[in-house]
Amino acid sequence: MSTVDGKTVRVALLGCGTVGTEVARLLTEHADELAARAGAPVELAGIAVRRPDKHPELPQHLLTHDAAALVESDVDVVVELIGGVDPVREWLLTALRKGKSVVTANKALLAEHSAELFEAADSAGADLYFEAAVAGAIPLLRPLRESLAGDRITKVMGIVNGTTNFILSAMDSTGAGYAETLDEASRLGYAEADPTADVDGYDAASKAAILASLAFHTRVTASDVHREGIANVSASDIAAAKALGRTVKLLSICERVASADGTESVSARVHPVMIPRSHPLASVGGAFNAVFVEADAAGQLMFYGQGAGGAPTASAVLGDLVAVARNRVIGGRGPRESAHAALPVRPMGQTPTRYHVSLDVADKPGVLAQVAHVFADHEVSIAAVRQRDRNDTASLVIVTHLAPDAALQATVEAIGTMDVVNEVVSVMRVEGEDS
Amino acid sequence: MSTVDGKTVRVALLGCGTVGTEVARLLTEHADELAARAGAPVELAGIAVRRPDKHPELPQHLLTHDAAALVESDVDVVVELIGGVDPVREWLLTALRKGKSVVTANKALLAEHSAELFEAADSAGADLYFEAAVAGAIPLLRPLRESLAGDRITKVMGIVNGTTNFILSAMDSTGAGYAETLDEASRLGYAEADPTADVDGYDAASKAAILASLAFHTRVTASDVHREGIANVSASDIAAAKALGRTVKLLSICERVASADGTESVSARVHPVMIPRSHPLASVGGAFNAVFVEADAAGQLMFYGQGAGGAPTASAVLGDLVAVARNRVIGGRGPRESAHAALPVRPMGQTPTRYHVSLDVADKPGVLAQVAHVFADHEVSIAAVRQRDRNDTASLVIVTHLAPDAALQATVEAIGTMDVVNEVVSVMRVEGEDS
Repeated sequence: MSTVDGKTVRVALLGCGTVGTEVARLLTEHADELAARAGAPVELAGIAVRRPDKHPELPQHLLTHDAAALVESDVDVVVELIGGVDPVREWLLTALRKGKSVVTANKALLAEHSAELFEAADSAGADLYFEAAVAGAIPLLRPLRESLAGDRITKVMGIVNGTTNFILSAMDSTGAGYAETLDEASRLGYAEADPTADVDGYDAASKAAILASLAFHTRVTASDVHREGIANVSASDIAAAKALGRTVKLLSICERVASADGTESVSARVHPVMIPRSHPLASVGGAFNAVFVEADAAGQLMFYGQGAGGAPTASAVLGDLVAVARNRVIGGRGPRESAHAALPVRPMGQTPTRYHVSLDVADKPGVLAQVAHVFADHEVSIAAVRQRDRNDTASLVIVTHLAPDAALQATVEAIGTMDVVNEVVSVMRVEGEDS
Repeated sequence: MSTVDGKTVRVALLGCGTVGTEVARLLTEHADELAARAGAPVELAGIAVRRPDKHPELPQHLLTHDAAALVESDVDVVVELIGGVDPVREWLLTALRKGKSVVTANKALLAEHSAELFEAADSAGADLYFEAAVAGAIPLLRPLRESLAGDRITKVMGIVNGTTNFILSAMDSTGAGYAETLDEASRLGYAEADPTADVDGYDAASKAAILASLAFHTRVTASDVHREGIANVSASDIAAAKALGRTVKLLSICERVASADGTESVSARVHPVMIPRSHPLASVGGAFNAVFVEADAAGQLMFYGQGAGGAPTASAVLGDLVAVARNRVIGGRGPRESAHAALPVRPMGQTPTRYHVSLDVADKPGVLAQVAHVFADHEVSIAAVRQRDRNDTASLVIVTHLAPDAALQATVEAIGTMDVVNEVVSVMRVEGEDS
């Protein structure tokens, strides 16, 4: 049953931080098991690190600082865990053009240059796998690329950034503001020294681009993704959400949107969202990620697991490594880029969303009528209103039906200028409830 | 990007009930999309049904009652949706031996004869895919076979049978007994006319065998799986669970178990389990399935979705169909059977489990000491005790630490014969809490 008769698969490892160290360890410790699964020994042929002298824990004869030379050497698979676009992009293009398979966790690179990378892979018949680039250990990309290949995916929505999820969960439980909570997250090691990529949504936007591309067979890059981070989420927003049995999460949302004339487009966006506390995503805390997928035939699916960390990410890398090694052994290859649908990407302003708007208004008759009039002027339909008196002011909470995001934005702007409106307390998009 | 230059892949469909009808529909309606994904047109070449005259809705020229002849004809892939072992087994062996790929949802067949089927597939270089056999639409088998191929899975535990889940959920919410609730489930169409396969755990045991085989690279058949159904779950069991903030679910549990001497074995079992209401599996209701997977590097993962139904199951079948079609187009093939670990299957009596025991005892001093003595005699360690008075009797609830199942069974038997014990109200295994 267990045939390990294939030619040894030689692996170059680029980068050896938290994830790379785990990959190197598992490759060595589980060598027999991996060989049985791949059908050939899988051997670490070299490890490129910036400063070889800083890695006394690694086999010294494998270390090099020359990643370019390692890629050009006699290796079959390149595992890239350095991250960032340059100079990694050139190395991986070189590897693919020479027919070497590539396994990478590099979301930033894939979110901008996947077309070029896939073309290089296709022309040389090489594999490009990247399960670890989105949602760490969770097997998510393979199901999207393969299991659902016969279905029609309509929506992918989830929590794919652990730092922002930690901060929002903490704000929800303590009632503290954003800046204070970010400081605490940094102190505890949940936020990087420069947290921009996480808190401004760049990381989640790269992942949304990768997810939308796979789900809708369309090339979507990070620059196509509408991006809002969590820096503007205030303690008032969190309190307003709580008062309504909701919580705030930063979600990556990829949707197939049909126009009135039946033509389809893709919406990909990252922004804070209010969801009901009963929603399965509401209870996802800490470093965990969770992603919902909706498809015509399959219905609703959820995937849950650890989104980051050395060992979980290494698990995803090794799964890919076994797959590309096995493909080499049997002379096949994995799924290629699937971009045949080539749907247009819909601008955020034209994307249908729902808003929650919380207002502090004058407590006198006719205010609701005036405010409702502004919504109507912008052709935004109201789903629910809640009004509460507070001394001589009143709070007015409005949740809309679906409307183009631009119309909702314009409505909120107009309301902010009304005499009877003292303050726009909170504005946030809503997901996960019937409209 | 979109290359559909491969030779047409001709598909034989065996069986055309709820799932088959959806498969035939999707194959026709999404022909262009499927062709783009597979790299070649995927064409329905024939449909074998018992009574062709009963299917006016299907293309008449494709229908035949002769499945054996259809398998032998000029087709590349056989999709089998008839179910049961004979005569399907012979047809699929014939197909595989002739190098035709097989996609099947037949859990009963796979749980008993997968070794033979995989050997036939291997010797001819054909693909055998069966995502739809477990947990319907949920992409579960592909992640186990491929995404986690570089990791070491330690446990797979989940709800994989919708009928029993419906009945137990209903008993939990109404407080009604088993027989009454089964009748109601039959009336509503949630249970078959002959519910044996579901309520006695045969269906869940077949699925456990498939999951354990994939997770632990070991051949596990349905007859290796310890099986207890839900017919003995009483209203008292449900009430006892409720009183402790728990609920009862029928779980399929596959575990890697290490002996004191370090040798490993596999435990595969299906039985009712008490889990805390806060456990993610506790809130899985109706037709939904959910499966937890624990792996050394990946940590804890959860997969959730629809476990049955025509369209969801068809989604899984089509995902497999696209994969095997693409493998044919590019001349590769998917993962083979992985049974290299060949771990022994541990008998249930030697499997470590935890028990919840609820007793009605005489209300006098020293009863707990006597009962605790019996646990100690069997070397079963007690984790928690709760005692409550009720007139001249008292209720005594004991939850144990892990112990061999046979020791726990013997303990319960011995306790049942004690003078101070009026009644053993409920005995049930416990999962999902710290021991």
